Amino acid sequence: MLSLHRRDTPVFDFLNECNKSNLPKKILDCGAGGGSPPLAIFFVEGYETHGIEILDSQIERAEAFALKNNMDFNIIKGDMKELPYEDESFSFVFSHHTIFHMSKKEVGKAIQEMERVLILGGLIFTNFPSYDCVGYGEGKEMEKGEFLQKEFGEDVLHSYYEDREADMYFENFDFISIRKWILLKNEGWVDNLGMIEYIAKKKL
Amino acid sequence: MLSLHRRDTPVFDFLNECNKSNLPKKILDCGAGGGSPPLAIFFVEGYETHGIEILDSQIERAEAFALKNNMDFNIIKGDMKELPYEDESFSFVFSHHTIFHMSKKEVGKAIQEMERVLILGGLIFTNFPSYDCVGYGEGKEMEKGEFLQKEFGEDVLHSYYEDREADMYFENFDFISIRKWILLKNEGWVDNLGMIEYIAKKKL
Repeated sequence: MLSLHRRDTPVFDFLNECNKSNLPKKILDCGAGGGSPPLAIFFVEGYETHGIEILDSQIERAEAFALKNNMDFNIIKGDMKELPYEDESFSFVFSHHTIFHMSKKEVGKAIQEMERVLILGGLIFTNFPSYDCVGYGEGKEMEKGEFLQKEFGEDVLHSYYEDREADMYFENFDFISIRKWILLKNEGWVDNLGMIEYIAKKKL
Repeated sequence: MLSLHRRDTPVFDFLNECNKSNLPKKILDCGAGGGSPPLAIFFVEGYETHGIEILDSQIERAEAFALKNNMDFNIIKGDMKELPYEDESFSFVFSHHTIFHMSKKEVGKAIQEMERVLILGGLIFTNFPSYDCVGYGEGKEMEKGEFLQKEFGEDVLHSYYEDREADMYFENFDFISIRKWILLKNEGWVDNLGMIEYIAKKKL
């Protein structure tokens, strides 16, 4: 098993659910870039991986990881609000630590796109920052729970959610689990990170 | 990767930390029985596994699983408050969804034993029910946060903890992470299960 950063370990839960299903092993990661790409743990389990990423710099980091480990994730450049994939073309789609870098309305658009490319009975996994998160309340509040915050020196919108607020995005899904977690202490990274993660199945 | 029940998936986080360390792959599970033994995920990664379990029925269930999957976990019958192992004989020791079935004082004794059998720099993983847990407040409160509750028809003591209350057990450890999670929704199992999980390293 490949190791992940602590904030990324919930992806193992999703892998666990995907493995339990008997669907074809074809998966899409929305926001797939970075130096420790979660698609790697699916790749080593024999999944056909696809990814989309909006930032060149993050694509490069993922490609460097893939090259070093003799893998290939099929990551393309693009916007997760307009996925360049056919309807119902994946068994599994996820977006981890990514989808909240926009307004709640835009998040809804992105999840609609994820739903569109998912087969009936396919599984989705996304996470959202909770009101318990250390970042909640920082910066200027633009809409309810949407804060304009500095990230790597740039102004970025972050959306935060109440416990079951994100249910609104999953009308056409059945919930498998909704888990909130708070990192009370975390060696070498930020404490009091609070996230809510959804695993759901597209209705048949 | 073997699949786990949803309540057990945090064990993947511990596996992740164990794999990242360069210690000998020798692990002990305290409360190792049951039909889906977490030791299995270490076994398939090449760990030398050992387990202790107080209930015959749970040992039998784990042995049935091992037999079916052609594995061997070395689970013996015994009490985790008096571990029949030498000092500093394991790199990793954990107790998942088990250690809170006793008083807080007894939990302290069990963790002392886990510390004793762990090498310097070795890793421990345990979880504790939080005050957010659905079970908190049920039954007769014997001491602060200790409730006498029915489990499979028998009276069992369950201990519940405030956010950093269990820190008291880890005086001789450095924290790697402390994570609280709450299952807000959980298909096919209880909702609002709230747990606090500790991963820590025995001080050198």
